[in-house]
Amino acid sequence: MGNNDRLAERNRGFFRAHGLLVLNVLSSPGSGKTTFIQKTATGLAPRLRSAVIVGDLETDNDAARLKAAGATAVQITTGTLCHLEAGMVAKAAGTLDLKALDLLIIENVGNLVCPASFDLGEDLRVVLLSVTEGEDKPLKYPPMFHSAGVVIINKMDLAEAVEFNRDLAVANIRRVSPRAQILEVSAKTGAGMEQWFEFLLAQKAKVRA
Amino acid sequence: MGNNDRLAERNRGFFRAHGLLVLNVLSSPGSGKTTFIQKTATGLAPRLRSAVIVGDLETDNDAARLKAAGATAVQITTGTLCHLEAGMVAKAAGTLDLKALDLLIIENVGNLVCPASFDLGEDLRVVLLSVTEGEDKPLKYPPMFHSAGVVIINKMDLAEAVEFNRDLAVANIRRVSPRAQILEVSAKTGAGMEQWFEFLLAQKAKVRA
Repeated sequence: MGNNDRLAERNRGFFRAHGLLVLNVLSSPGSGKTTFIQKTATGLAPRLRSAVIVGDLETDNDAARLKAAGATAVQITTGTLCHLEAGMVAKAAGTLDLKALDLLIIENVGNLVCPASFDLGEDLRVVLLSVTEGEDKPLKYPPMFHSAGVVIINKMDLAEAVEFNRDLAVANIRRVSPRAQILEVSAKTGAGMEQWFEFLLAQKAKVRA
Repeated sequence: MGNNDRLAERNRGFFRAHGLLVLNVLSSPGSGKTTFIQKTATGLAPRLRSAVIVGDLETDNDAARLKAAGATAVQITTGTLCHLEAGMVAKAAGTLDLKALDLLIIENVGNLVCPASFDLGEDLRVVLLSVTEGEDKPLKYPPMFHSAGVVIINKMDLAEAVEFNRDLAVANIRRVSPRAQILEVSAKTGAGMEQWFEFLLAQKAKVRA
């Protein structure tokens, strides 16, 4: 068992003891992770109290954006490292008041390759695919999509403009990830977001039980 | 000097001896690399004779797309590796008739992090940023944009739909890459592509001299 997997399991136990639902949100750069997470954190309040841990090579732009929208956010900068590791998450989580939280959302570095093999101790992996990226991405980045518990098809408001083939995209996701929950949303307009919130509330109820 | 750098310099010498202009094309997944490269290869013919070496984790979809459009293409599948390496390129180039070519376009694995530190022996790094990804990407992935000789802002046909802030994007590119050539195109509609072709023809003239 590698060092990251060991620390990830420790995180998992620690988060479970706090009754937290923990998401690891992954996607290519520019799929809309930050907007999606911001709308999730603010849209779920006061039903769930959330905080966000954000990973980026440089800048604290995303944490600043999340804070400006009223979310609690901590930034991790990874330098040249293309993924978060469990130890970084443990350290960042230590700066949060976990007792006051129900949901911890980890926004990973924008990358469809490297973060796939790093467990952070999450309950659920959420992989975003935006309609502007093309329907073939699940086939081209299978380890990432294979590891997903949920695949969010985002930017549905642009589906028509980019001639998005929904059936093809869903079929491609199914080929690498037969059991993942698939949800179609536009974080920008809010379309489909309430269905996502209901899904998370059901997941959270399982963590509590 | 690392093994990759050694092989990259060997590639550089080998390609130069053949009078080839060699591009290393990089971007996030879904920025439109394959369409851009396809339109470049077909749009430049017969002025320049091109071939494409395509890297992907799995599938030969991109090579198949390029061949269907009339381009010469060789696929490299990297498995779980998030970048191409110089040795892979040398091997793939060995399957091409380089004497019959003027331009070799290498489409790297879709990733804004890992490929930045792997020289392939190219003359020019071309980094694509699509308007749907957001203006902040150069600041969040500085090593990649810093290494760019050319930054192509792609999918300009969607600029209005996504409320793309061109001046902000250009300012952000300039912050990490003060000297890169910046071109705005829509590979889909063809807008701006002739300017890109002129740029490449001028670069090719330098290689020949």
